[in-house]
Amino acid sequence: MEKPKTIDFQHINHNHADLTVIEKQQQLPFSVQRVYWLTNVPEDQIRGNSATKYGKRIVACIKGEVTIMLEDQEGNVFKFVLDNPNSGLYIPNLYWSEITFSADSILLCLVSNSFDEDDYIRDKENFQALSQANG
Amino acid sequence: MEKPKTIDFQHINHNHADLTVIEKQQQLPFSVQRVYWLTNVPEDQIRGNSATKYGKRIVACIKGEVTIMLEDQEGNVFKFVLDNPNSGLYIPNLYWSEITFSADSILLCLVSNSFDEDDYIRDKENFQALSQANG
Repeated sequence: MEKPKTIDFQHINHNHADLTVIEKQQQLPFSVQRVYWLTNVPEDQIRGNSATKYGKRIVACIKGEVTIMLEDQEGNVFKFVLDNPNSGLYIPNLYWSEITFSADSILLCLVSNSFDEDDYIRDKENFQALSQANG
Repeated sequence: MEKPKTIDFQHINHNHADLTVIEKQQQLPFSVQRVYWLTNVPEDQIRGNSATKYGKRIVACIKGEVTIMLEDQEGNVFKFVLDNPNSGLYIPNLYWSEITFSADSILLCLVSNSFDEDDYIRDKENFQALSQANG
């Protein structure tokens, strides 16, 4: 099973601005089929609360700070804090995610597949049961 | 010659947060090979000042406001103001771009090709001359 891992993007400081880059040939482990961003999330609201059967994601905190709790189907928990726009997190499929936002934070997600509600598991007991069914 | 055009992304307001989505099958006219974002750009600094021979881009102003001036090789000028995270701009190749940032703005760019300095034209006279050479 693939493990989540932090990713250091390319970072260029140019004319006092920060340019952060992720390229397919380098840090991108999949073709991007979907991109989304979350803005205006109320502080301390927990987002995610789901896992995907197939979809893989790279997430980046473009502004502010987000805390990402991931749990695999055996109950192993991984915690990541993203607090700068130059590093991100690779989230494989089959990880339950809970994402907490600090005020005014912005999360960018690059996703390996198109949206399909059938790809999402939104009930944690179902997520855990899926493992036992396959175990 | 392709024309620049604004793009309305999918926008979902969910639990008081804003989710903005762009998908390959829908609003994305190319495969994304590279993603970059610009943060901490000094107010009123002009970025861009270049054109690409082949690379096409979709840009989105995730936070704040940017003004984008595009000029084709015949000297036609197009002006766009992006001031919300739910709409963006498709910039074809062979458009000179000048992008002005308001304070604390963030620009996200989805690009159709990997980085190659040879794809960039950074001298406006060369950009215009390229047209005359081909004309």
